[in-house]
Amino acid sequence: MPDLDPEEFRRLGHQLVDWVADYRAGVADLPVRSEVAPGWVRSQLPAELPEEPRPLDALLAEVDRVVVPGTTHWQHPSFFGYFPANASLTSLLGDMLSTGLGVQGMLWSTSPACTEVEQVLLDGLAGALGLGPEFTFAGGGGGSIQDSASSSALVALLAALHRSSKTRASGEGWRETGVDGTERIYVTAETHSSLAKAVRVAGLGARALRIVDPSPGSLAMSPAALAAALAADAAAGLRPILVCPTVGTTGTGAIDPVRAVAEVAREHGVWVHVDAAWAGVAALCPEFRDLLDGVELVDSFCTNAHKWLLTAFDASLLWVRDATALPGALSITPEYLRNAATDSGDVVDYRDWQVSLGRRFRALKLWTVVHSYGLAGLRAHVREHVALAAAFADRVREDPGFALAVEPSLALVCLRVVTGGGDAADDAASRRVLEHINASGAALLTHTVVDGRYVIRVAIGSMATTKEHVDALWAQLVATAAQVRAEVAAAG
Amino acid sequence: MPDLDPEEFRRLGHQLVDWVADYRAGVADLPVRSEVAPGWVRSQLPAELPEEPRPLDALLAEVDRVVVPGTTHWQHPSFFGYFPANASLTSLLGDMLSTGLGVQGMLWSTSPACTEVEQVLLDGLAGALGLGPEFTFAGGGGGSIQDSASSSALVALLAALHRSSKTRASGEGWRETGVDGTERIYVTAETHSSLAKAVRVAGLGARALRIVDPSPGSLAMSPAALAAALAADAAAGLRPILVCPTVGTTGTGAIDPVRAVAEVAREHGVWVHVDAAWAGVAALCPEFRDLLDGVELVDSFCTNAHKWLLTAFDASLLWVRDATALPGALSITPEYLRNAATDSGDVVDYRDWQVSLGRRFRALKLWTVVHSYGLAGLRAHVREHVALAAAFADRVREDPGFALAVEPSLALVCLRVVTGGGDAADDAASRRVLEHINASGAALLTHTVVDGRYVIRVAIGSMATTKEHVDALWAQLVATAAQVRAEVAAAG
Repeated sequence: MPDLDPEEFRRLGHQLVDWVADYRAGVADLPVRSEVAPGWVRSQLPAELPEEPRPLDALLAEVDRVVVPGTTHWQHPSFFGYFPANASLTSLLGDMLSTGLGVQGMLWSTSPACTEVEQVLLDGLAGALGLGPEFTFAGGGGGSIQDSASSSALVALLAALHRSSKTRASGEGWRETGVDGTERIYVTAETHSSLAKAVRVAGLGARALRIVDPSPGSLAMSPAALAAALAADAAAGLRPILVCPTVGTTGTGAIDPVRAVAEVAREHGVWVHVDAAWAGVAALCPEFRDLLDGVELVDSFCTNAHKWLLTAFDASLLWVRDATALPGALSITPEYLRNAATDSGDVVDYRDWQVSLGRRFRALKLWTVVHSYGLAGLRAHVREHVALAAAFADRVREDPGFALAVEPSLALVCLRVVTGGGDAADDAASRRVLEHINASGAALLTHTVVDGRYVIRVAIGSMATTKEHVDALWAQLVATAAQVRAEVAAAG
Repeated sequence: MPDLDPEEFRRLGHQLVDWVADYRAGVADLPVRSEVAPGWVRSQLPAELPEEPRPLDALLAEVDRVVVPGTTHWQHPSFFGYFPANASLTSLLGDMLSTGLGVQGMLWSTSPACTEVEQVLLDGLAGALGLGPEFTFAGGGGGSIQDSASSSALVALLAALHRSSKTRASGEGWRETGVDGTERIYVTAETHSSLAKAVRVAGLGARALRIVDPSPGSLAMSPAALAAALAADAAAGLRPILVCPTVGTTGTGAIDPVRAVAEVAREHGVWVHVDAAWAGVAALCPEFRDLLDGVELVDSFCTNAHKWLLTAFDASLLWVRDATALPGALSITPEYLRNAATDSGDVVDYRDWQVSLGRRFRALKLWTVVHSYGLAGLRAHVREHVALAAAFADRVREDPGFALAVEPSLALVCLRVVTGGGDAADDAASRRVLEHINASGAALLTHTVVDGRYVIRVAIGSMATTKEHVDALWAQLVATAAQVRAEVAAAG
C-alpha cells in the first residue's frame, strides 16, 4: 500500500487541476455565503471512516455535494468581507512544488534550499517594500515566513521579553525565570485581537495590556498618550516591553503614526512591532510608501502575503532588524537536532524563528507569485483595488442616503446607511442592509463597531473583483437601503 | 493583472503535476542529503526580484538547477533520519482542493464545511485509534488539526494553565493576571524539546520544568518518581500544572506508561498531555493499541498525520476530553469577528483551539488520505514498516559488530557499532559510520545521545521504503563499519 505511483498521480493530478479550474470558473455563479445550518455538513457525511480504499471520484462527488454548498466562497468576486484571502492559482502551483518535494525545513541542514530561497525572497521583498537594508540578512536583520500575523506578533513579543530581561541584575532572564508580572504592552482599542491573544499566550495576562488613547478626532494611536503611559508605568516600577502600531487596522484601516510612535518608544528601549498584516503590501507601490514612514526605527514588521498579495494561506511575512533576536528567545537544541552546519554558525535555522519545530517550504508559493507577476504585476494588483475603492467611496459621499464612517483606507471603505432618524436608526438600518445583502448571496460584507456605531465594511481585494462587481454591490446597497427605509416607514 | 484564467491554470497545472510525478519517479536516484555548502543556494539566485512577469518554465528551470540540488530528499526511499515526513501524493491532491477552494476557516461561519469536515474526521479517527468516545465532539471532547506537535503541546499547556487558575481565591485567573511563577510542568529527559519550548513561550521559564527520573533500567518516566515530585512541589507551595508522558520519544522511541502516569497526575488535578507525535498513529492497528493503555484517563492527546500517516505537513492531530478547555483559554472576540452562529453556541470556531486566527482547510488533505487508503490501507502502511524494522533489528542482534542501543520501538531501531575497544571507541566509530553513510548520499541517518553514548537512529517509514532499501542500508552499515574499524586499526 505505497503512495500513488507517478503515472497514477499524473492522471489524478490532472483530474484535480480540472476540478479546481472548473470551481474557479464557476464560483461567481454561487451564493457567496454558505447558507447551511450548523450540523448540516456533519449530517451529510458518514460517521464511520471507510475501511477499504475508495476512488477519488467518490471523494470529489462528496466535495461537490457537501463541501461546496458548505463553503463561503472567499475567492468569489463579490466577497467583500473581513480582508481578502487571495489564494491565487499561481500560488497553488508553487505549493504543489512544496508538497511534491515534501521537505521539512526546520533546520538549514534538513534542506538548505528551503531556508535560503526564503532568505533571498524576504531580502528582496524588504527592498521592494522600502523597509531598508537593516531588515535584510545582509544588513544584520532578516525575514521569515510565519503562518499568520498572530504568530508573527507572538514571536516578536517573545523576542522583546527576552531582550528586556537581559538587563536583569540577577543575570537570569526570561528564558530561565519567565515573566514576572511587571511587563506592559501598548496597543490601541483598534489593534488586532491577536496582540491581546499573544499577551495571554505569553503568560502576561490581560492586566499587562495597555490601551493607548487615539489622537483626538482619529482612531490612530496618540504618540503623546503613549509617551505619558510609558512614563507613568516606568515611574511605577513597571516594565514597558512592546508597543504595536498598526498600519491598516482590521476595523477601519486606521494607520498609527509609526515614526512618532517609534521615537517615543525608543526613549524607553521598548520593542516596536508594526502590524501591517493587510495594508503593508501596498508599500510595494511608491505612492503608498508613506504608510510605513519611520519603519527604519522599528524592531519588527509584519505583513501577510496571504491577504492581499496573491499567495494562498499561510504566508505571513515577518522581518526583524536583529537576526539574533528570535533565535535568542526561541532556540532550544536537543541532541537529535544537533548538526555541523548549525554548530558552524554559518546558517539560519528557521525553527528558531518560530514556535513550531517543523515547517513547510512555504517560500515556493511566494516565489512562484513574485516570479509570475513580477513586482509590476503585484503593484498593478494593489493599485486596481485602491482605485476601485476610491471610486466606490465617491459614490458613498455623493449619495445622501449613505455616509462614510471614516475616510477610506487603501481598498477598505467603511460606511453607514443614513435614514434621517438619528444614530440608533442609522445603526439599525445599516445592520439590516448588511444582513439582507449577505442573505441574498450576491455579495458578502462584514461589519465593525466604531465609537459605539455600527459600520459596514467593504474590503475590496478579491482577485476576481472588477468594476462590474463593485458597481453591482453599490446598486444592491442603494436598493436594499431603500427597501429597509420603506420597511421602517411602514412599521412606524 | 488578475489570477490565471482557468484554462491557463489547466495547462500550467498539468505541467506542475508532471514535474512532481517526474521528481518522485526519479528521487531514488538522487543523493539523499544535499551536499551544498551554506550560501550556495543564495549565490545561485538573483538578489533582485523580477520587475516583469516571467514564464513558469523559467521558474521550473531554477528549481531544477538550484532547489533540487539544495534539497535533502525526505521522500527518498533511503531517508531514515529524524522521523519520516510522509508527504503522499494523495495528500497533495487533497491540499490542491484546499487551495482551490481558498477558504479561511477561522470561524464556523467563514466556511462551515472547513470546520465540520474536520470534526467528522477527528471524531472518526478518535474511534479508529481507540481513544474512546470522551475525545469526540459527541462525547463532550473533540479533536482539531494543529500545525505541529509543538503547537499542540503549547495549547494544551495554555488550557492547563487556565484550568488550574480557575480555583484562585481572587477570582482572577490566568487570562487576567498571567502566570505567577509557582507553576510546574513534568517531563523526562527524553521528552521532546517542544515541551521545553512551550514552557518558555508560556512565560514560565526553564525553572518551571521538572525532569522526572526514568524507571530503573529504562528511559520511560517513573510513576513513583513523578508521584514524589508532585508531592514535594505541592508541599512547597508550588502548583503542578501539566505532565507530559510521551508515547515514542524522538531519541529512541521510549514509551512512558500513560496509565500509571495519569493515575498519579489525577491525584493532583494535573493536566495530562500525551505526546505521541510519531508513534500514536500505530494505534490504528489493534496489535499496537497497548501503547495507549490508559489514554482514557488523560486530558489531551496528540499524534501527527504528517509524520507516519501519509499526510503532507502540516497536520498535527490534537484531541481534548473537554471541548470547552481550549476556547476557555484562548478565545478573544473583537467586534469584527462576532456573528450569529458563534453567538448561538451551536458551532465550533476552531480559531479558539489554536494560537493563530487564520486557518487552512487542512482537513481536506487528511480526508483524501483516509478516503483513498481506507483504514485497512493505513494499517498496512504502519505494519509494513514495523515488520521491516523488526527484521532489521534481528540483523543487528545477530552481528557481533553491532549492538542495539535499546530494543526497537515500532519502526525505529537504535544501534551502535561495536569495535571491541570500549565505549569511547564504539561511540567514535558509530559517529564515523553515520558520517560516512550520510556523505555517500546513499542513505540518510541521524543520531542521538543516550546516557552519554552516541546512538545511530534508523527510522523506517518513508513511503517509498521497501525491504530492498533496508537491506541496502544494512549492507552499507556492515561495509562502512568494517572500513572504519580498518582505519582505526591502521591508525592505531
